[in-house]
Formats: sequence, structure tokens, C-alpha cells
Amino acid sequence: MSDAPLSGHELAALDAHWRAANYLAVGQIYLVDNPLLEEPLAPEHIKQRLLGHWGTSPGLNLVYTHLNRLIKKRRQQALCVWGPGHGGPAILANSWLDGSYSKTYPDVTRDAAGMGTLFKQFSFPGGVPSHVAPEVPGSIHEGGELGYALAHAYGAAFDHPELLVTCVIGDGEAETGPLAASWHSNKFLDPVHDGAVLPVLHLNGYKIANPTVLARIPESELDALLRGYGHDPLYVSGDEPATVHRELAAAMDLALDRIHAFQRAARTEGATVRPRWPMIVLRTPKGWTGPAEVDGQPVEGTWRAHQVPLPGVRESPEHLRQLEAWMRSYGPEELFGRSGRPSAQVLDCVPDGDLRLGATPYANGGLLLRTLPVPALDDYAVPVGRRGATLHAPTSVLGGLLEGVMAATAERRDFRVVGPDETASNRIDALYEATGKAWQAQVLPVDEHLARDGRVMEVLSEHLCQGWLEGYLLTGRHGLFSCYEAFAHIVDSMVNQHIKWLRTSRRLAWRRPIASLNYLLTSHVWRQDHNGFSHQDPGFVDHVLNKSPEVVRVYLPPDANTLLSVADHVLRSKDYVNVIVAGKQPGFDWLTLDEARAHCARGAGTWGWAGTEDGSREPDVVLACAGDVPTLETLAAAGLLRAHLPDLAVRVVNVVDMTRLLPREEHPHGMPDSEYDALFTTDKPVIFAYHGYPWLVHRLAYRRTGHAHLHVRGYKEEGATTTPFDMVVRNDLDRFRLVMDVIDRVPGLGVRAVAVRQAMADARARHHTWIREHGTDLPEVTDWTWGG
Amino acid sequence: MSDAPLSGHELAALDAHWRAANYLAVGQIYLVDNPLLEEPLAPEHIKQRLLGHWGTSPGLNLVYTHLNRLIKKRRQQALCVWGPGHGGPAILANSWLDGSYSKTYPDVTRDAAGMGTLFKQFSFPGGVPSHVAPEVPGSIHEGGELGYALAHAYGAAFDHPELLVTCVIGDGEAETGPLAASWHSNKFLDPVHDGAVLPVLHLNGYKIANPTVLARIPESELDALLRGYGHDPLYVSGDEPATVHRELAAAMDLALDRIHAFQRAARTEGATVRPRWPMIVLRTPKGWTGPAEVDGQPVEGTWRAHQVPLPGVRESPEHLRQLEAWMRSYGPEELFGRSGRPSAQVLDCVPDGDLRLGATPYANGGLLLRTLPVPALDDYAVPVGRRGATLHAPTSVLGGLLEGVMAATAERRDFRVVGPDETASNRIDALYEATGKAWQAQVLPVDEHLARDGRVMEVLSEHLCQGWLEGYLLTGRHGLFSCYEAFAHIVDSMVNQHIKWLRTSRRLAWRRPIASLNYLLTSHVWRQDHNGFSHQDPGFVDHVLNKSPEVVRVYLPPDANTLLSVADHVLRSKDYVNVIVAGKQPGFDWLTLDEARAHCARGAGTWGWAGTEDGSREPDVVLACAGDVPTLETLAAAGLLRAHLPDLAVRVVNVVDMTRLLPREEHPHGMPDSEYDALFTTDKPVIFAYHGYPWLVHRLAYRRTGHAHLHVRGYKEEGATTTPFDMVVRNDLDRFRLVMDVIDRVPGLGVRAVAVRQAMADARARHHTWIREHGTDLPEVTDWTWGG
Repeated sequence: MSDAPLSGHELAALDAHWRAANYLAVGQIYLVDNPLLEEPLAPEHIKQRLLGHWGTSPGLNLVYTHLNRLIKKRRQQALCVWGPGHGGPAILANSWLDGSYSKTYPDVTRDAAGMGTLFKQFSFPGGVPSHVAPEVPGSIHEGGELGYALAHAYGAAFDHPELLVTCVIGDGEAETGPLAASWHSNKFLDPVHDGAVLPVLHLNGYKIANPTVLARIPESELDALLRGYGHDPLYVSGDEPATVHRELAAAMDLALDRIHAFQRAARTEGATVRPRWPMIVLRTPKGWTGPAEVDGQPVEGTWRAHQVPLPGVRESPEHLRQLEAWMRSYGPEELFGRSGRPSAQVLDCVPDGDLRLGATPYANGGLLLRTLPVPALDDYAVPVGRRGATLHAPTSVLGGLLEGVMAATAERRDFRVVGPDETASNRIDALYEATGKAWQAQVLPVDEHLARDGRVMEVLSEHLCQGWLEGYLLTGRHGLFSCYEAFAHIVDSMVNQHIKWLRTSRRLAWRRPIASLNYLLTSHVWRQDHNGFSHQDPGFVDHVLNKSPEVVRVYLPPDANTLLSVADHVLRSKDYVNVIVAGKQPGFDWLTLDEARAHCARGAGTWGWAGTEDGSREPDVVLACAGDVPTLETLAAAGLLRAHLPDLAVRVVNVVDMTRLLPREEHPHGMPDSEYDALFTTDKPVIFAYHGYPWLVHRLAYRRTGHAHLHVRGYKEEGATTTPFDMVVRNDLDRFRLVMDVIDRVPGLGVRAVAVRQAMADARARHHTWIREHGTDLPEVTDWTWGG
Repeated sequence: MSDAPLSGHELAALDAHWRAANYLAVGQIYLVDNPLLEEPLAPEHIKQRLLGHWGTSPGLNLVYTHLNRLIKKRRQQALCVWGPGHGGPAILANSWLDGSYSKTYPDVTRDAAGMGTLFKQFSFPGGVPSHVAPEVPGSIHEGGELGYALAHAYGAAFDHPELLVTCVIGDGEAETGPLAASWHSNKFLDPVHDGAVLPVLHLNGYKIANPTVLARIPESELDALLRGYGHDPLYVSGDEPATVHRELAAAMDLALDRIHAFQRAARTEGATVRPRWPMIVLRTPKGWTGPAEVDGQPVEGTWRAHQVPLPGVRESPEHLRQLEAWMRSYGPEELFGRSGRPSAQVLDCVPDGDLRLGATPYANGGLLLRTLPVPALDDYAVPVGRRGATLHAPTSVLGGLLEGVMAATAERRDFRVVGPDETASNRIDALYEATGKAWQAQVLPVDEHLARDGRVMEVLSEHLCQGWLEGYLLTGRHGLFSCYEAFAHIVDSMVNQHIKWLRTSRRLAWRRPIASLNYLLTSHVWRQDHNGFSHQDPGFVDHVLNKSPEVVRVYLPPDANTLLSVADHVLRSKDYVNVIVAGKQPGFDWLTLDEARAHCARGAGTWGWAGTEDGSREPDVVLACAGDVPTLETLAAAGLLRAHLPDLAVRVVNVVDMTRLLPREEHPHGMPDSEYDALFTTDKPVIFAYHGYPWLVHRLAYRRTGHAHLHVRGYKEEGATTTPFDMVVRNDLDRFRLVMDVIDRVPGLGVRAVAVRQAMADARARHHTWIREHGTDLPEVTDWTWGG
């Protein structure tokens, strides 16, 4: 890359912009005053607490500067995902330079006063975070927790054919598993309908306190690795700015030329060979242009440059002197004059309007979001004649609706379904009527449903599914993640970050609402007939409910029509993380579509037809349930009570929306106490059959008046490879146990109840004997129907 | 690899063993009776529920067969990690063939009767799981949740120089992030002190319903990728058994020769160049030797072979016929005779005694476990004169103890500390006095503490840290995982599997206890001064407490000496997952070592010196606390109450062991009600300042008599880049708020309390003003000492 495309003028301008950004990054970390160094630096100009990450900043500034040039020269729609998100000072500096910061935050003007505010607010209480957080214009990726940059970048590029998504990957982040898997995303990127991703692997050699693996393997090994990932790498390295500017500009031009050539070939010439997409390996010193040595120790180019390279500036005159020399080395008077406004040379490379990385609408996806065309549910609902007599697999019914959404977005291409190789297993494969599975690698004649332009995405990595979908949603589209319930925990930490992002974004008026992240958790804890104990974990719901209540929603629809109604709701919603737990096995239909809609709108309600109360008084007992299997067992228990203890006034309550159990002050969906008390009573026993860990219900309802009378059954880590009914027996959630619980808790039931209780215990014993001999469930259980 | 080393006799024997294993795998999936096909197969011989995974089984059987040969020929100590853990039928079959199954389960004899039991019990209620679960002899890795095979294999190999750990990686699993990261583990494997890992990438082309990425990229790309990972791959592929046998035997011989050569060079010749370790790429059809077509659809070699290729055997005579032909194709009468005992030819390749993969002590680590030499704590404890006056960073003090353990195990090499690049940041870097950081890649002069034989392991992947440590512990060693609190969630799903493994192992008498998996969670939620909101999540504790109580333990030591005492306990413990949450910032010393020991032994207790009760009656209020920051705020609140409301009888209770709050029936550490009531009272207000999500305390204590009087403060997702005290104020956990809580809840405090309450509110207002102006905490807070 010696034939560099830069004129002397261009080179000087790029370098000026880079120096300006570096100056602003240092200023943010250190200064509360004297932003332009108009007077000699003194301790009172220095922040009392020095917080921030310098090490990655010069590299990020370099990439931002060169992207500016590329965008302006080519008028290229672009977005950048900054993997080293700790480098907030760099991205803030560049946003301030390109004017997008002042556009977003008018009080931070692009002059001396604004520079002063920019510096002071950084990592300061009440100010702005030190990461590339939602507060940062142009960001879709905070990046504080490493691993997800490249998956986010691909998600942003899917179905945005005009877009270039650059992704800076730190060599620390490159050690994480999710990032390592993300390289293979290029086997899922369609050069016709998707945009391009340009990874920039930034090898600055060190993480917090250690060298990085990719910086310390031989060049030949690194090159083989990146080619093995399917890329054609371009290398830029050095510590001499002019050389690096020339090489990086050339590499970016070449990369974009190649990208456009691949796209042209695919789009206009029908090429179907998978492109070897370009990428850039950028090797520059950590903390480049910062202090070379501090207190006799090498700093620039080492891990010691990671955070604040001169920690003692307020106390040590020598550190203070070094800081001043460091900042002046960038030439602030040349870059900003006395006004503090960036010079024309500094701004020479900066694009205008929405092309600016800090102003691109792709990074504020709500601006691009269109209402999702969800078809009318009536076409997909199952008819319900006699309740609890017909069976439908809820997810299979949902599959029809999803097919409808997929078909309705065939032209718009703003809806995707992701999952770890389980779309068919989870029975939403009706989707394949409307689209295929995205796949750019080899196809064999025996394969089914693979398509270069498919919008179902299957890869055996929950991390990739989550990361892709997040990137897709954050840039203004819609989607659903279908996942094994137990293995949703694989993305616990990712969903944390997404919820935190949404919670913060909701408090920023300029960030427009984006589509919710919707989970369909199926293959759930109660139906791991052959995978057994290791596949049983209903705790993702618990995890999510720990997070910000303004963002999180949890639904457990008990049958096919309620699942349809819930899905309709969540697909239209914005700025939430919705978790739906629903079975993929055939289950009884309880509610008609109209009933389902009314029930889901309430979120929790009495199923009058299932109980035996006559309305003249409070019931003797409440049987509550949430989840498909607990609902089945509860209704079976209600049937047993109706038959054996007909005088007992039983109320059956079904809960679809778990957050309704929370107090109103704790969650927007929380029931007022009056409603809770009317539904559950204040002093009658409530036997609550819950899908997951039983204590979750207590954690939600502990403040309710009747809490002392609440008795919850659920999953308590008793599992095996076994039958469905054996699973509920092992966890004391079965119908017989629920009847026993009622008898144990309702006072004054008399001698008849003693006999009934014994009959229930006998039934459980019958189960144990039968299953040992036959390996199947009792016929009286498998043949059961409601009212049958 | 055409110069194959097999004689005709050897080839025939290997093939016989492989066919026998295949026969046994099919039999387990299908048969309840007629195991030797002594009569024509009839529907009543078939299981009612057909559960199991055939697709991967022939490949696993092939690898097991050839490992047998290699082990026997070379007398090589070996362990195998079976990544495709769904292939339980294969590993069970081989364990039965090598006699280790009957040794472990004497009722399953190696004859016709035992074969019948083997078949019937598989994936049958009350029988054995369908995965390579703890019940399977020779397993350290259930593998149902994919991603962790290779990390487990490396963990097993570390500090076992004599051991060969083969690891079969399915091409589905190879798509996961953790597996993708694991390839780089070879940069951390010391050829001198560690054993060897031989990865076998098994490309059978499909996962559940899709082709796999690595099976569908060009050979050249795959080869570059594996070389980029630092391996020297050997390729074996085909669907003609004799050829594959010859090539696989040759590849295994060659691989082991190369491994031994590398080890010899490093161990006896002092070679320090990082070996390009061999690995094998094995490309064979999915469901090889099974039905080629079923109902007109191709099955063998496609995803349709993944689970049960003939699903309708009980109903369809054609399927039944196909099954019988399939099973007879292996020649059972030749393999097992009429007795059901494997023929001499079948057993020809099988090694004996502990060399058998099903009998190796490495897979039952408790057999190898030695007591960890934990030095006396007195040498590390901090002196405590006046309480709450001196400051120590608890993790730094712990670092001394860990250094002691590291030094004491210098020869034995059975203790490692893992962490994602945070050993120094988390202040346990005293470890480097005793050992270095494992590193086999390039070293530069500026680097510090890197060592080829280091036993601190740092890599920026929590998945690798967790996987390595699990493998290390499961094979009989000790260790600790030091991690950012928030990012422990990255391994939520991994710890689930480990807890499930331990829970099941504890119920198997033949599995000997292994060392506990110990977490040190630090850099916790309250001290993310510069990382802010994205780094704040104290919920790992909640996640772990959902799991089996016989396994999980959670400790929140409030100061340095209590941390020492807790660490001493957990390092000596077995079969637990211990989570310790402790700060790395300097904190007050509250207890002497002796007091700390007594307090930690109780797990929760009154700090009489901190309260104001006189013993003559119950206190008016209980201030409870758990965690270092809540303890500080609670003691500060107690000080304020003592000063301002001296007549109020305040009890201060500190909780170290969170599970003590659970009822005795729910956890082995749970307090009896009498003890709980004596400590917390049954009717006095309890203001509980808790480190994490406040509702966790309610979830633990909801059954207690006094629960209605329990008021918990904790983290409620209100965070930012801010000061330590501002964090507690934002979450209403600060001393002033706690005093207000007391005043709001203790009745009859009178007019004086109204004034005190106002003073507290004023102090909070003072905080808000001060921090806005100074960006630091109030001097009255930062200068505070107990009794000062």
C-alpha cells in the first residue's frame, strides 16, 4: 500500500483532525478548566477524580478521522460500531468535532465554552459516562462489556444494502468467545440485500494488564486465521503518523472499492460466489502520542497506557508538567485558535448532515422504524368448541402468524427471526413458506429451505442470535429470538446490556423508540423428555425481572390463542424486552381468540368456567396458575375437586403477565392492591402452580396482604430424562399434589376430604409403579380432558 | 496417510469393536427386549417412547474404538471429552464393552442379561440420561449444552504432564462462541508441565436441522482457520469403513508421535518454541451405517439422522423391518455370540484396568484430589485495634493468602487462579510473588510476570476461565475464579451445568468429591466509579441461589479478616459452588481474625459493639447488613442513631452467609426459626441493607415470622459513572436514608425524631449540591470513621 492516495494537503488535514480528537480525549480525562491551555496548567484545572481510558483512544480517533474522509469523499452511508467502548473520550471528541454533539446537546457548543463543558462533564457525577453509551451520538453499542461488537455490526448491516458498517475490534475483545464466533457471520451476509461490514482489528498489543493473544502470534498465523474466517485482510501498521495515515487511507479506499465490486457483481451480474470480504488489521501503539515514560516506566505502547497514564497530576508537579507538554504537543492553538472552534483544516475531512457518524439515523433506529404489518389474528386462531378437549401446539399456531408477518414484509425486509438451529424443532417452521434460512456457504441438493436472501437466521450460537438481533433492532427493524428456555441463560449478560441500553435511551428525548427485543422461550423445563436435567432451567425470567421495570415484560400464555394475542402485542411494542414462555408440544385449547384477547389485556384473571364458586361469597380456595403445564395441572386439580369435593368453592385464576403480581409502584403493569385482593382474596389459601422457580412468585407478591396465605409450587431442580407427568410429580406440581395442598390448607373440610387426600396419594403411588413398569404416563393422565 | 499401520487382523478387530458399539447404541435407543435379536423383531420389543441421538453416535464409536487401540498400544494415560454429549448411547456402549460399566454398576453385567438392562435403562424413566452425564463412567463433561468441550479438555490437561486429553468437537458445537475462543487455549498450555490436548473436529455436516458452517466452507479456508488457531491439522475423511479405519489409526499414531516429540523437546531439550500441536479433522457421514433412506427421504449423511432415524417402528412394519435389517447388518451373533458377551475379536483393541477410558481416575477427580495446603491465616490477617478506623483492601489481603497457597503447591502444581485479565486490577497480584501468568505466545522485554509455567491464567474470556477451571477441578485439582461481579453473568449457563453436574455426582456413591468451584466476585456494583451503569449487576448471586441447595453457597464478607476466614473455608470445601462477593477498594476493618472466624462460623450474628441495646429487652429496631458497602452504611447509620437518638435500642446484625436466611428445610445452612427469631425478632422493624437486589432477601426470608416487618434496601438499577457515596444515595442505601427508614418504622419516637429525620433529609440534599459542584463525595462522608 505504498501508492497512497493522499495529497500533502489531505494528509495535513487528516493529521490535524486526528490531533484535535486526541487533544479533546485527553482534555476530557483531565480538565475541569482552562480547556484551551490559555494559561499554564495548574492543579486546580485538573479533575479531582481521574477516570477514563486513554489507551484505545488514539486508535479510535484515527479510525474516526479516516472514516470521515471516506464518507465525505464517497458520500457513503456509514455507521461505526466501536468495540473498545471504553474509549468514550474518543467518540465524544469526534462527535463534538463533526458538530453532531452540539446538534444533539445544544448547550455543548462547538467553541471554547462548549469545550469546557465537554471536558468537565466527562465521567463526572451528573455528566456523561466514560463509554460509548446511549448518550453518545452515533452509538448503537456501548461496548463496556466486550464481545458483541462484530455481531452488532452484522445485525446493523442486514437488510441495509446501502450501508457500510465499520466495526473496530480491540485485540482484547477478540479473545472473547462471542467475538470469536462472530467472524463467521460473513456466511450469513447477503451481498444483494445486506450492506457491508468492514472489520478493523485494532492490535494495540495489550488489554488491561496483559499482552493479547492476537498481537503475539506470528503474522503468518494471524493471516491464516483471518483468511480462515473468510476475510481478505489488509494490513496497516506503524507508529509514524504520516505513514500510518497514508496506509490507512489507502487501505480504506481499497476495502471500499472491493466491497462495492462484490456488491455490484452480486447485484447486477448475479454472482453467487461468497465474497472474501476485506478487513483491516491496524497495528498501532497503545496510548499512541501519549507519555512515553512515566516515573521511569515505559507507558506508551504498553498496558500501562490503558487508563490514565499520568495518575498523579494534581499532586505531582512532574506529572502536571508532562500532561501540559503532552496536550500542547497536539498544537491546540493551531487546531482551535482562541475561539475554541475547530479550524477549517481540522474540519476539512468531516462530512455533512446525516452522513456524519454522529448524526446518522442508522444509529438512532427509531427514526427509521416503520410499523410492523402484523396480520389479523383471526386467520390464525384455533377454534375452541369444548374447552380442554382439542389440542394444538401453541408455537406451531404462532408459526402461522409469523409466516404472515414475514410475507407482509417481503418487500420491506424489516423483520427477522433468529434462533440456534431450532426453528423447526420449536415448530415455527411455517416461516419457511414465506422465506428461507439465510446461508451463503455451500449448498447441497439434499438441503432444505436455505436461501441467500432468507430472513430466518439459524446458527448454533445464542450469542450470535442475540447480537445480530440487537444490531438489527437498534438500527430500526423488528424481530424475534426463538430459543430453548434453559439456554437463554447463555445470553444473560448480553440481555443485561441491552436492557440497560434501553433504560438509558428511554430517558434521552432525542433517542426515538425502537422495536422491542422479543424472546420466544420454548422447549421448556417441563418437556425435556429426552434431554433431561441439563436442559431444565426456567430462570431466565428471574434474571430479566431483576432489571429495570420500565423495560422488562414477561408473559406465560397458557394456550395457542393466548400465545397469538401476546405475540401480537409484543411485536407491536417498543423499547421493551419481552419474554414469552410457551410450549411447543400439543396442549389443550382453553380460550377462544376473543376470550384470549380479553384475558391477555387483563394479564391475570379468573376463569369462571373452571371454578366452582357461585359468586355469593369469597371462594374457599384460589387455584392460581401461570404457564401451560401448570395450567393443565391446575385445571385437572380443579376437575378433581369438583368431582370429589363439590361443595368447596374453588376459584381458578390464570396469570399471563407475571409483572401484574408486582405492586403498582414497582412496575407499570403492577396491580393495585384492591385488584389483587379482589382476585386472590386477602385471607384465603392460594395454591399457585407456577412454571418456574416457585420463589419468584413470592418475590413478586411479598408485599400483598394475602401473602402469608400464598403457597407456590414450581420447578425445584428435580429433573431427569423422563416423562412429562413424572416431571411434575417429581417437583410436586402435579394435579394430585395440588388437590392435597388444597385439603391441607382449607380448614374444616371434614372426613370426606381425608378420604380424597388418600385417593390422591394413592394416585401418586400408582404413577410411580406404572412408570417404573411401562416407562410411560398413567392412562388416566394421558387420556384426561377437561370435563371429560 | 496411505501407509496405514494396520494389519488385516487389527483392522478386522477394530471394525468388530466399532460395529459392536454401533449395535449397542441402536439397541439402547430402540429395544426393551430381545437384545440379541434371537427372535424376529416385534413391536413389543420396542420402547414406547423413542428418545436418543443416533446421528453423532457412529462417529463417537469410531473415535472411542481407535483411542482404545492407541491407549493399549502405547500404554498411554488418556481421557476423552466427548463434545457431542447427546451421543450418550455411544459412550455407554463403549463403557459396557470395555467392562468399566459393569465395574461401576455391577448389576449391568457384560452378557445378554446386562445388555438387556443397558438397552432398557437408556433414556427410560428411572434409568440413565441420554447424554454423557455424570452417570456415565469416564465422563467429565455432559455436553448437552454445547460450547465447553475444548475448554474442559485443556483444564484437564493443565498440570497433568502424563495425560493425553482427546476432545471430540462436533461441527455444531464449533459454531458456538465459547468453543471458537477455546482454540486459542494452546497459547496457555505448557509442554513441560501440562499434558496434551488432541482436538478431533468431527465434521458430520449437520446440526439439528441445518448444515454446519465449518462443513460448508472450502477445505482451504478450513485449513487456514485451523492453522491460524495454531494447529497442524491431519485430515481423515470417507464413508468406506476400512479406509477410514486405516487413515484414522495412522492419523492418531502420527498425532501422538508428534505430541511426544514436542513434549520431549520441551522437557529434555529445553525447547521453548510454541509447538504447532496436531489435531484431527474427521469427516464422516452423520448417522453413518444407519438407514440410508426412510419413507423415501435420504437420512444417512443428512440432518434427518440427528435423533431417531426410524421414528415409527412400533406402528410401521416397514420401519420395523428396516430397524431389524439395520441392527443385523452389524452381525450381532458374530460380535456377541449367544451369551451376549463381546467376542475376543471385539475386545482385542480394549486396554485394561485404569487405562480404560471408562475407568480412568482422571475422570473421577476425587480419586486424585489431595488436601489443599492452606497456610495459617494468622500470617495474613490484619491487626484491628480500634474498629472502623484502619483501612485495608480485602482482596489485597486475600492476595497474600493466595500467594501462600500458590507457594505451598509449587511442587504439587494442583492449584490455579483464573481471571479475565483482572488479577492485578482485582488486587490479588501478590500471587505473582509465587508464580507467573501462563503464557506461551511471544514475550517482549516490557512484559511482566509472564511465565511458561505460570499458574495464574488470564485471558479476556470468562468462558475460557470458567471452562478451564471446571476441567481442572473435575480432574482432581483446586482453584479460584476471580471475576468482575457484573460479568460473572457471562458464565451463568456454564455454572448451571457445573452445579447440575455436582448435584448429580453427589448422588452417585462411586463419584468421589472434588474441590469446590470458588468465585471471588469483586469490582462490584457499588464501585464502578468510572465504568458506570453497564458494569453494575449484583445478580449472579440470585442466579446461583436458584440452583440445588446442596451445592450452592454465597458469602459476603464485610472486611478483610472475614474474607480471609471465608476463603480459608471455601478453599478446603468439596463439591460446592461458592460465591464470595468482596470489595477491592480499601474498606474499614471491623473484626479481628478471631472474631472474624467466629462470625463466619455463625454466618450471621449480632455485632454487639455496634448497637445500643442493653440486653434487658428486645431492641426497638434491627439494622441488618450484608456486603461491605451496606455494612459501612449501616454502621454509619448506627452511629448517627447513637448520637441523635441515644435512647433507641438498636441491634446491628451482619450476615456473611446469605443462605442462613433460608429456612432449615430449604438449605443445609438455613437457620432454625428459633435462631432467626432470636436474631431478628418476630415483630420489630428490620432495616436490611443488602449488597444486591433487595428482593433477594425477601425471597430467602419470606417464610419467617417477622417477614412483614422486614424492609430491605439494595441495588435497584439506579447507576451511573459517579462517586461511591452517590451510588448508595441513588439507590436509597445511604446512611441518611437508613436512619430515615428507622424513624419511619419505629413507632412512638416523638418530636426529636422528626428533627433528626429532617437533618438526614438535609444531609442528602447537601450531598446533591456538593457533588454537582465538586464531583466528589461530602467530606463528612469521606472522613467518617466509626466512633470518630
